[in-house]
Amino acid sequence: MALHTPDQLTERLKRRSVDIRWRGQALDDVTEHPAFAPTLHSWGTWLYQAAFDPETAPTMVAGPDLNGEQSHVFWHMASTVEDLEQNLAAARLLAERSPLAGYASIGRDELQALLIVTHRLDADRGTGYHQRVRDYVSRFQREQLMTAAAVTDVKGDRAKRPAEQDDPDLYLHVVERTAEGIVVRGAKAHTSGSVGAEELIVIPTRAMRADDADYAVSFAVPVDAPGLTLIARAFNAGSDSAWEAPISSHDELAETLTIFDDVFVPYERVFLLGEWEYAGEVANTFASVNRQGYLGTESGKLRLFIGAAQRIAELNGVAGVGHIREKIAQLIRLERSIWALGVAASRESSCTPAGYQVPDPVLTNAGKHICMEGHFMATRLLLEIAGGAVTTAPLAEDLLADDIRPLVEKYLRGADPEQTWERLKVLKLIRDLAASEYSGYWNTEIIHGSGSPAAEILAMYRETDLGACKRLVERALSGREAIMPPAGAAA
Amino acid sequence: MALHTPDQLTERLKRRSVDIRWRGQALDDVTEHPAFAPTLHSWGTWLYQAAFDPETAPTMVAGPDLNGEQSHVFWHMASTVEDLEQNLAAARLLAERSPLAGYASIGRDELQALLIVTHRLDADRGTGYHQRVRDYVSRFQREQLMTAAAVTDVKGDRAKRPAEQDDPDLYLHVVERTAEGIVVRGAKAHTSGSVGAEELIVIPTRAMRADDADYAVSFAVPVDAPGLTLIARAFNAGSDSAWEAPISSHDELAETLTIFDDVFVPYERVFLLGEWEYAGEVANTFASVNRQGYLGTESGKLRLFIGAAQRIAELNGVAGVGHIREKIAQLIRLERSIWALGVAASRESSCTPAGYQVPDPVLTNAGKHICMEGHFMATRLLLEIAGGAVTTAPLAEDLLADDIRPLVEKYLRGADPEQTWERLKVLKLIRDLAASEYSGYWNTEIIHGSGSPAAEILAMYRETDLGACKRLVERALSGREAIMPPAGAAA
Amino acid sequence: MALHTPDQLTERLKRRSVDIRWRGQALDDVTEHPAFAPTLHSWGTWLYQAAFDPETAPTMVAGPDLNGEQSHVFWHMASTVEDLEQNLAAARLLAERSPLAGYASIGRDELQALLIVTHRLDADRGTGYHQRVRDYVSRFQREQLMTAAAVTDVKGDRAKRPAEQDDPDLYLHVVERTAEGIVVRGAKAHTSGSVGAEELIVIPTRAMRADDADYAVSFAVPVDAPGLTLIARAFNAGSDSAWEAPISSHDELAETLTIFDDVFVPYERVFLLGEWEYAGEVANTFASVNRQGYLGTESGKLRLFIGAAQRIAELNGVAGVGHIREKIAQLIRLERSIWALGVAASRESSCTPAGYQVPDPVLTNAGKHICMEGHFMATRLLLEIAGGAVTTAPLAEDLLADDIRPLVEKYLRGADPEQTWERLKVLKLIRDLAASEYSGYWNTEIIHGSGSPAAEILAMYRETDLGACKRLVERALSGREAIMPPAGAAA
Amino acid sequence: MALHTPDQLTERLKRRSVDIRWRGQALDDVTEHPAFAPTLHSWGTWLYQAAFDPETAPTMVAGPDLNGEQSHVFWHMASTVEDLEQNLAAARLLAERSPLAGYASIGRDELQALLIVTHRLDADRGTGYHQRVRDYVSRFQREQLMTAAAVTDVKGDRAKRPAEQDDPDLYLHVVERTAEGIVVRGAKAHTSGSVGAEELIVIPTRAMRADDADYAVSFAVPVDAPGLTLIARAFNAGSDSAWEAPISSHDELAETLTIFDDVFVPYERVFLLGEWEYAGEVANTFASVNRQGYLGTESGKLRLFIGAAQRIAELNGVAGVGHIREKIAQLIRLERSIWALGVAASRESSCTPAGYQVPDPVLTNAGKHICMEGHFMATRLLLEIAGGAVTTAPLAEDLLADDIRPLVEKYLRGADPEQTWERLKVLKLIRDLAASEYSGYWNTEIIHGSGSPAAEILAMYRETDLGACKRLVERALSGREAIMPPAGAAA
Repeated sequence: MALHTPDQLTERLKRRSVDIRWRGQALDDVTEHPAFAPTLHSWGTWLYQAAFDPETAPTMVAGPDLNGEQSHVFWHMASTVEDLEQNLAAARLLAERSPLAGYASIGRDELQALLIVTHRLDADRGTGYHQRVRDYVSRFQREQLMTAAAVTDVKGDRAKRPAEQDDPDLYLHVVERTAEGIVVRGAKAHTSGSVGAEELIVIPTRAMRADDADYAVSFAVPVDAPGLTLIARAFNAGSDSAWEAPISSHDELAETLTIFDDVFVPYERVFLLGEWEYAGEVANTFASVNRQGYLGTESGKLRLFIGAAQRIAELNGVAGVGHIREKIAQLIRLERSIWALGVAASRESSCTPAGYQVPDPVLTNAGKHICMEGHFMATRLLLEIAGGAVTTAPLAEDLLADDIRPLVEKYLRGADPEQTWERLKVLKLIRDLAASEYSGYWNTEIIHGSGSPAAEILAMYRETDLGACKRLVERALSGREAIMPPAGAAA
Repeated sequence: MALHTPDQLTERLKRRSVDIRWRGQALDDVTEHPAFAPTLHSWGTWLYQAAFDPETAPTMVAGPDLNGEQSHVFWHMASTVEDLEQNLAAARLLAERSPLAGYASIGRDELQALLIVTHRLDADRGTGYHQRVRDYVSRFQREQLMTAAAVTDVKGDRAKRPAEQDDPDLYLHVVERTAEGIVVRGAKAHTSGSVGAEELIVIPTRAMRADDADYAVSFAVPVDAPGLTLIARAFNAGSDSAWEAPISSHDELAETLTIFDDVFVPYERVFLLGEWEYAGEVANTFASVNRQGYLGTESGKLRLFIGAAQRIAELNGVAGVGHIREKIAQLIRLERSIWALGVAASRESSCTPAGYQVPDPVLTNAGKHICMEGHFMATRLLLEIAGGAVTTAPLAEDLLADDIRPLVEKYLRGADPEQTWERLKVLKLIRDLAASEYSGYWNTEIIHGSGSPAAEILAMYRETDLGACKRLVERALSGREAIMPPAGAAA
Repeated sequence: MALHTPDQLTERLKRRSVDIRWRGQALDDVTEHPAFAPTLHSWGTWLYQAAFDPETAPTMVAGPDLNGEQSHVFWHMASTVEDLEQNLAAARLLAERSPLAGYASIGRDELQALLIVTHRLDADRGTGYHQRVRDYVSRFQREQLMTAAAVTDVKGDRAKRPAEQDDPDLYLHVVERTAEGIVVRGAKAHTSGSVGAEELIVIPTRAMRADDADYAVSFAVPVDAPGLTLIARAFNAGSDSAWEAPISSHDELAETLTIFDDVFVPYERVFLLGEWEYAGEVANTFASVNRQGYLGTESGKLRLFIGAAQRIAELNGVAGVGHIREKIAQLIRLERSIWALGVAASRESSCTPAGYQVPDPVLTNAGKHICMEGHFMATRLLLEIAGGAVTTAPLAEDLLADDIRPLVEKYLRGADPEQTWERLKVLKLIRDLAASEYSGYWNTEIIHGSGSPAAEILAMYRETDLGACKRLVERALSGREAIMPPAGAAA
Repeated sequence: MALHTPDQLTERLKRRSVDIRWRGQALDDVTEHPAFAPTLHSWGTWLYQAAFDPETAPTMVAGPDLNGEQSHVFWHMASTVEDLEQNLAAARLLAERSPLAGYASIGRDELQALLIVTHRLDADRGTGYHQRVRDYVSRFQREQLMTAAAVTDVKGDRAKRPAEQDDPDLYLHVVERTAEGIVVRGAKAHTSGSVGAEELIVIPTRAMRADDADYAVSFAVPVDAPGLTLIARAFNAGSDSAWEAPISSHDELAETLTIFDDVFVPYERVFLLGEWEYAGEVANTFASVNRQGYLGTESGKLRLFIGAAQRIAELNGVAGVGHIREKIAQLIRLERSIWALGVAASRESSCTPAGYQVPDPVLTNAGKHICMEGHFMATRLLLEIAGGAVTTAPLAEDLLADDIRPLVEKYLRGADPEQTWERLKVLKLIRDLAASEYSGYWNTEIIHGSGSPAAEILAMYRETDLGACKRLVERALSGREAIMPPAGAAA
């Protein structure tokens, strides 16, 4: 593919006529709206730009795509161990510069899962989904489509499955099948980045049973298809100062409640339709692929934490203190563990009959679970190292006021009076990472993004070969001269 | 004392002419400013009101004060175990309704420490500080003065003591002694609540050495004394919607960088002047008293967390799920441990020769340290139980728009469609507590408020009777027929 | 009661004719057997002696018993807050000298629960159990009977209740009711200390349902009653050197699998018989009382850990190192938290209609759960501070050999060559506490003694007033000018 | 090399005349002594056998050695990423069958470090150490010498460096240099496996300074060289029943205090002599190599834990319970993290100018630190899942007694009466792993083996490229339109 530029993307986004609501109003052009600028940067222009930036391009440009052209790694389907390693490295590299950008591969991850599962489904059932997915991927790559993933249903009563809900629309489902396609109804929650997407890729959120068949549906749809409404939540509208928010002023992820009010989808865009036995496999394969990306992203974000911790310790004059070093070493240990799980998930990945690679599910789930717990420890350690000035330091306007600035310069210095401004900047960066509305967003994202911790626990247990571990116990017991049950004993 | 009303406080605050700066501007009347309303509520009107509210008054009204009248517990000096128990219960009760209000006793805590240490100082040196403190306390109680605590110096190079800094003003110090009083210069950081205070009470932030004598100074000063400038940081200006921020719209704690530019203090308000040997004792006694209040406050705040966790679990239909119950039990275990440390710190408190009571320092420091670690676990558990909608649910204006409201009502319901609004409200409450700028403030406050974790570690080690523990080891070794070192052996 | 002496106890134990098996053999006189000496010391002679030892007696001697005489605190029924405080202090005091001795109150704790529950049962049903319990307690106190608690059934399939098991004997049950009494069959596991007991006190291990009625049985029985067989597990037989095992050579707790092969119990010793609705209450009340004792015991044991950690740090020359002090402070924090939960459980205990006091169940369960987790952290920290010589230092016989001793003295010294022997002794003490078969026993005991962690989690959740916490949430939401659901909205 | 057989090893060990002391006595033939059998099995015969066993041989047999022959992987010097991967896999495979066998590569790891550092040293100084090491390695491989590592000095005052000690012998040092070689004096602690070794390989334990030059010494010496005395500590002598101790009856690691009383070493066996600047590099390179082996070993051991946990859960009838599965998932998460750090340490290893490979030091140290913390969590979880019968189940002799066996069979069953014996065996296995003297040994070994946690913290901090992390912070701050320091501002 000819790599697309950020400007091409912006131009295409302007051409959409999407029904986006925000604060009760319909938005005309989201690309001009300040509340959405950080999302459009992080999940949009910066992402496309990274394939041209000399520092990032070597990691961002991947091998040939389905059309035989070079591709952006976030549009590339992994078919080797090395592809997965590149995915991981790319997520980290993007995240080091704009943490949430590391998650923008989610549409690709859904397609990777669909390529794999439809291949098996077709083999089992003689259906023809796989080619449809390939065709779609071919266009996805050729046009470098910006996609968002619509996965999590709104769910109503969390203790009930789709067909058990008292309102049938609480999971997205097929309400009509016409000659040309299907009509779907329902809503997906937490659709990250959809405000800046051209297409939504929809997959089931969980395993299903026979009576859930109408809920076993997957497809792609333009974000401005008739019947689609996006109710947006952009968290930091207003706190847009680059001084107060050096990261979140360009890195955000607007979410939408995405409503499908009888949306029509032609069959060539439908990738699963009623084969409920495969719904769980799509969801789980997607999770294995997507959660590996979390490991790269978290590694990148934690490297920012480590750099900020070391820098503020130097500026405060305490970089040589034992317990400060120990805390930084704890951050390092955390980051290295997460990274290592990402590396090992590539090395121990498996190749599917479809020819695409899946990271090891136990390793990715273990890693995601550690990201989740570790984020809160990392936040605490960073703030402990930095000190209370993180939240009490004056605001930007104070620093610009002629009568206040000298006081701030005199009194808010650290060890070196020449570095007062540097110290204030680093404090504000730390505030943004660990004590702000943006950090609050991360709190939730790292827990619930790509599935809950409870789902990760379940996946680790389910995907481990417990039989192999039990055989070690058997061997330990049988190979020795253990006391023998007396003749006639029960066992 | 006749208990003072919220209106009396507001009227008095309006009469001040304080030099407060915010966003580069001098503020005329902080009591009318929306950015400071939550602080003036939590640390002001609500605090005074609690002594009249029938539900809270029994805990808030304390026994006779120095003037022989009944008093508000946050103005009462503890001289019995029961007084400390009431302090703890009052902090919890206030915090259950407005978490940061639990911290408003800080001025009282400084005075409690000064009463104790000056008594010993006078006994050692024949000075007359104790009567000055008593006179001040008497007025503090009679007028129910709203105070703020100026404790933490700006510190410059954190690896150096006051006298070692290259700028002598990086710790507050005496620059002149006149016939009537002293002149002080320097700055205190993180002065919580000063925007709504009438008086600042200043104590040393740490132990000192002989060459730090000019830094060993304590006094009280009106917040509008000539030479005082307060540069304010109010975190949530703008996010004032009671829907989005049900707690922080009325509960905040504006902080100031408080600059003393040659402020004059008459001798009758000076409580320590050069007796550097006592600086550490003032700081440590204050810490023991003040950190017990953290335990009450954190217990109250965590009870909000527990209630929110249980409520959202019910609304989501998962209150019967094992791992949800286990997570709520973890929150309970945390809250109970902190509360218990507060209770035990009262029971094992000691009475000083001055007649005032000090909570056990090891128990209070242990509790504060657990508050700090536990806050991050509690945030994680609450968010895990609640789900991602905490940060992705629509904004208030969406709910008021006629064309969006029905969609939200249909799709954001939980188990019971009648309780959709209740569910949304609880989600927003959880956002406020755990994923907002307000929660970011707590992240830092719980770590650095009333001293850093490193100081708590040191205090626990220093204040424990390790000799008693070592004697148990000796007894274990000596009382048995242990092998004896052969005759002539080294020991 | 006239306090009984250790010799009186030993004499009485000798008079029993108990069926104890060990290593496949029937034991004639367990009081003469070296494998059981540590148990008989810790749960026997030392316990009785502590009421005479001038250092321990003030804590061990309690107020009047049912017979109006002074009593040993481990035989005293608590009816005030102060009684519970004394129970806690006594458990700690004993444990500081012999850790497992802190658990010896378990028979008393069962009787305390039975006094309380039978009082309510009689009031509900007009039965006469309470007086039987009182009569038994009166004798228990008068004769200062050494008892053991038979609580945990062997349970078979852990997923099934008593009546659901395929073998009816897997929970202890009534097999016959005669004119004079009942006949019981079954087995109790983990009967701690029974080898040195005169009586077994039996209570149900869990809540029951109607079809479990025959399993709802409680009684007291002499340990040498016909039909009783005790299969003993004494862990350290052989490693009896006071040098290698300075604690466990006098502190152990032999456990038995206790088999009731149609044992007859006269009615005056039967305290529950078929009233299945009360079985859970007996078990839970017992747990609340007994788990408070764990808090005292663990506090005492941890004080040994703290003393050992500080002592070995001094001997190794590293007591001034920052991370060593931090680790000791972590041990202190743990010990103080556990102790505080014990103190608060007394302060917030409730008095039952029977006149006896129950510690707060949430606080005791929270404390027990922290004991369990904390034990493993404490083991790790103590070993980290001590160094590898804990397990690699030479054995006692090496130190007695003339040609080896000088080498050991030269090379295994620490900072001070005069204290080599002291260092070796402390290393062995640490080995005993943290890296021995005895420490392995503690690993299991601290988890499963007095109920599993899962039971504690459940108890904390069940016993907390979640309604009160939810009301705080309601207040936070209702008292504010929150956005109102529009007219006609669902709620 | 022709792979050597277990019998060849045993025969050679018998030919040694080593001065081993145990319990005050000199041992004639350690190969016949029951107390040492588990060590000689785990670090000896089983290790050699594994290269012949069809199940293990593919992992144990490595590529050509220095003599051009195939080699046992524990005698092979790694020069590629794949070699390191094989090292890791081999440690795990051995540990799954005999956990401590995973550590037996320690002599190889020292030689790997010496090959690397002497190459650089010779290049810097023109010395000829590298060839001596190669010659020794060639013989080490050809004869498949069983070695032990003498690394940790006895250290005296831990706060002082070698030359600062008041007794010069507290670190091993050169006391004489003759024409043919050197004479050394001192003692090494914790010499694992030396009782079954043919040779000791000695390296410095830490970085040194100029006045420590005589302590900067490395060499190889036969274990029966004149002047060498080994004072042994074998922990489980006596508890040799394969029933009670199914793992430790064949898996142990006897340690010695190894005394060098003026031992002569010819120059061809001396690998460092006075070049103090290189002492730290030898120690650190060795640590990086050796700690990777810990990751393989711990992974293998934890797989036994996981198998045992799952097996006992099934036997108890609770394998389907949510919190049991969650605990097993926690064990899995731990094992996978450690393994992943081992994998990544190979993938991100570096090749040295000498041609040999070093695992990434941050990853290996992070992994070792997690092993240490995780071991105690794993012990706790395994015991919690298994239940209290781990320590209270009857002893082997009880099961053999005709009158006791039926009682045990009836009452100690789990869910399935046919599997009572299996359940008892698994309980005993868990006792051995988590609640025995053997588990106590592991407690210390996992903390202090191959260096202390404090050393790992330091290594992680020191070896991380903090500059790269700080540059991310710089980029985040500089690339944005951050407020500019006003003209004339300090920075």
